[in-house]
Amino acid sequence: MTDIILAGLGQTDVGEHWDIGLRELAFFAIEAALKDAGGLKPQAMYVGNMLAPNLSRQAHLGALLADFAGLTGIEAVTVEAAGASGGAALRQGYLAVKSGLVDVALIVGVEKMTDQIGAGVEEALATAADSDYESVQGLTSTAQAAMLMGRYMHEYNVPADGFAGFALTAHENGTRNKHAMFRKPIKLETYQKAELLTPPLNMFDAAPNADGAAALVLTRRDLLPADWPHPLVRVAASANASDTLALHDRKDPLFFEAAYLATGRAIKQAGITLDQIDFFEYHDSFSIYAAMSLESSGFAIRGQGWKMATDGRISLTSNLPCATMGGLKARGFAGGATGVYQAVEAATQLRVRAEACQVKDARIGMIQSLGGPASTAVVHILERLEV
Amino acid sequence: MTDIILAGLGQTDVGEHWDIGLRELAFFAIEAALKDAGGLKPQAMYVGNMLAPNLSRQAHLGALLADFAGLTGIEAVTVEAAGASGGAALRQGYLAVKSGLVDVALIVGVEKMTDQIGAGVEEALATAADSDYESVQGLTSTAQAAMLMGRYMHEYNVPADGFAGFALTAHENGTRNKHAMFRKPIKLETYQKAELLTPPLNMFDAAPNADGAAALVLTRRDLLPADWPHPLVRVAASANASDTLALHDRKDPLFFEAAYLATGRAIKQAGITLDQIDFFEYHDSFSIYAAMSLESSGFAIRGQGWKMATDGRISLTSNLPCATMGGLKARGFAGGATGVYQAVEAATQLRVRAEACQVKDARIGMIQSLGGPASTAVVHILERLEV
Repeated sequence: MTDIILAGLGQTDVGEHWDIGLRELAFFAIEAALKDAGGLKPQAMYVGNMLAPNLSRQAHLGALLADFAGLTGIEAVTVEAAGASGGAALRQGYLAVKSGLVDVALIVGVEKMTDQIGAGVEEALATAADSDYESVQGLTSTAQAAMLMGRYMHEYNVPADGFAGFALTAHENGTRNKHAMFRKPIKLETYQKAELLTPPLNMFDAAPNADGAAALVLTRRDLLPADWPHPLVRVAASANASDTLALHDRKDPLFFEAAYLATGRAIKQAGITLDQIDFFEYHDSFSIYAAMSLESSGFAIRGQGWKMATDGRISLTSNLPCATMGGLKARGFAGGATGVYQAVEAATQLRVRAEACQVKDARIGMIQSLGGPASTAVVHILERLEV
Repeated sequence: MTDIILAGLGQTDVGEHWDIGLRELAFFAIEAALKDAGGLKPQAMYVGNMLAPNLSRQAHLGALLADFAGLTGIEAVTVEAAGASGGAALRQGYLAVKSGLVDVALIVGVEKMTDQIGAGVEEALATAADSDYESVQGLTSTAQAAMLMGRYMHEYNVPADGFAGFALTAHENGTRNKHAMFRKPIKLETYQKAELLTPPLNMFDAAPNADGAAALVLTRRDLLPADWPHPLVRVAASANASDTLALHDRKDPLFFEAAYLATGRAIKQAGITLDQIDFFEYHDSFSIYAAMSLESSGFAIRGQGWKMATDGRISLTSNLPCATMGGLKARGFAGGATGVYQAVEAATQLRVRAEACQVKDARIGMIQSLGGPASTAVVHILERLEV
C-alpha cells in the first residue's frame, strides 16, 4: 500500500475573529491548504466541529463549507467527537483515502466561539459530558478538570504550583508561533498569583476558548505531482478509542484509558516504540489533562507526569518537546478544530518549516486529541519520509 | 477485494418513546443488530445523529453509546449531515471496512425528538438550512419544502391533490410493517381534506417527526462465521454528494443536483444500469422531495415524478416499489437515524425477510438519504449475492 501523505496545510490565526463568521473562517484555512497542495482537487471533505449546532444554530457544515469554498458537489460530512472532533475527522479522511475510494480528501477543523447566536459557550462545551447525569447537574468541562486535578494533587502530593510548568512551556513556545492567540511568555509568579476558576484550577491551567480553522489535504503518494515541492510527511498510524462519558463510571478516574488504548494501537500500527517519538502534541485543554496524557500514553509513570513539565522535560530542546507551537494553552483552544491544528503543526515541524518553533531533527511526531476527559482519544503518528 | 456484507440488522419501533431516553433507544437497536450478527465483535461505531446536541444537550454520542452498549474502548464517532446523517454514517463505516483497518463496524442511527430539554424540534431541524441567510429569517424545513412544492406545481401544472399518491403508497405499505409509526391506510379524500401546514403543503405531504434507532453491522465476507445463517447482502456501491445549503444559491431549485451526482456515482461503482434496481427507498420527508428524487435520480423525466405515484408505478407490485416499509411518511421520520433505517429495511427485503412488505424477486435495492433539500445526498446500492 502506498503511503498517505499530508499534502496541503493551512490555518488561520487563533483568537477572536469578530469580523468574520464560521464559513469565512473555514474558507481561509481551506484556501491556504489547497494552495499548499499545489492543484490537488479534493473529492471529499471531512469537517471536525463540535459546537456550531449550538453556538451558531448551524449543523450540516459539510455541504455549507464545501459550497462556500467552491467545491459544491463533493462528498462532505461533519465528524463529531467533542474536543476530539478534529482528530476524528482526520482519521475518517485517512480511512477514506486508505479505502482506495477517495483519492484526495480535505480535512477541515473549524470552531467559532465568539459571536454565538445560540447557547452560551460553557453550556455548549458541556454537551461533551453526560447530559443525563453530569451536565444537567451543572458540571462544566472546567469543573470536571478541576475535580480530577484536586484528586491528582491529593493522591500524588503535588504542590499548589505543581502544574505551572505546562503553562510556562506552552506560553514560551507560543511566543514563536505567529498564529498563536497568546504570544507573551509568563513567569512562575504569574501562575502562582493567577485567579482561580474552579479550585484548585486557575486560569493558567485552562486553555482559552477561541475561534480558529485549520485544514489539510490527504492523498496517496502516487498521486502527488512529479514536481512536488515539500518534504514528504506521511500518516504512519491512526487510532481512535473511547472511554465512559461520565467520570463516575470509571474505576480509575486518574488514568485516561482511551489515551492508553489509542496510543497503544497507533504505536503498534506504526511499528515503532514510544522512544522513537521526537515530539508530542498533547491535548492540554487543561494542565491536568496534559499530565494525565503523558502518563496514560506511557511517557511518564503514574503520578509523575507533572514533573516532566517542572523539570523542563517537555521543552523545545528536551527529548520530548510538547505543545511545540504553544499547544491549546497558548495557541488557543478552537474546540473541534484542535486535532486539525495539531496535525498541521506537526506536519510543519516534520517539513522542517516550523521556524523559531522548530524541533531539531524531528522525524516522527505524535498528536493526541481528546474529547471530554478523554472519553474519546484520537492518536496519529506522522513521519517524514527520507527521499 | 472481498465483498462487504450487511451482517447484522436491528431497529426499534418508530414513534414516541416517552419512557426511554436517547441511549436506551440506541441500545435496543444495537443489541438487536449484534444478536443478528451472531457474535461478530465491532471495533468501531459510526453514529448517525442530527439533533441530539440541540434537543438533548448531548454531543459526543460515540463514546456515550459505545459505553452504554458495553463496548467501551472501541472507536466511536458521530457523523452528521443533517437528515442524511444515517446514510453518511453508513458510508463512513463502509469506507472504514473497505480500508482494511476496521474488520467489523457498527452503524447506529438514532434520534430522540420527544422529551427534548433544549431547543424546540422545528428550531433544531432548521439547523440543516443556512443559519445566516435562511433559518435566521424563520425559514423552517417545512417552509422550504412548501416553497419548492408550490413552484413545482406551478411549473408542471400539478393538480391540488397531485402528490397524494406518495402518502397513499407509504401508508398502504406502512400497514404491513410492525415497526412503522402509522399503520393505518389513508384514502384520497383524507389527503384532499387534510389540514394545510404551509400552503400548498398539507399534513400528509410531511413525514412525522419521531423517535427511533436502527443499527447494522458491516464486515468483510471472509470474516463471517462458517455457519452464517442469513442470505448474503453486500454493499454494491456507496456515494455521497453535496449541493448548496441555501435554496437561493441554486440555478435550478427544482432539480436535486446532489441526488443526481450521488446516484450517478453509485450506479457507476455498482456497474449496473438504473433499470436493474428492483426497489428504491427514497427520502420522502416531504412528498415533493420524493417526486424530485425520482426525477433527479433518473427514474422519471422532469415534471413527471408525481405521476409515478398517481399511476401506481411505485407500489409494492410495480416495477419500482418505493417506501416499501412505509418510508419516512408512514414508518416515521427519525431524523438522522433515517439512512440506517433505510439500509436495515432494504437489507431485510434482500434477505427475503420482509414478510407482508416483501418485494417479489428483489435482488438489488437502492437507498437515498437526503440532508435538507438535498444539500447532501447519500446513495447506497445493496445487492443479494446468489450463493
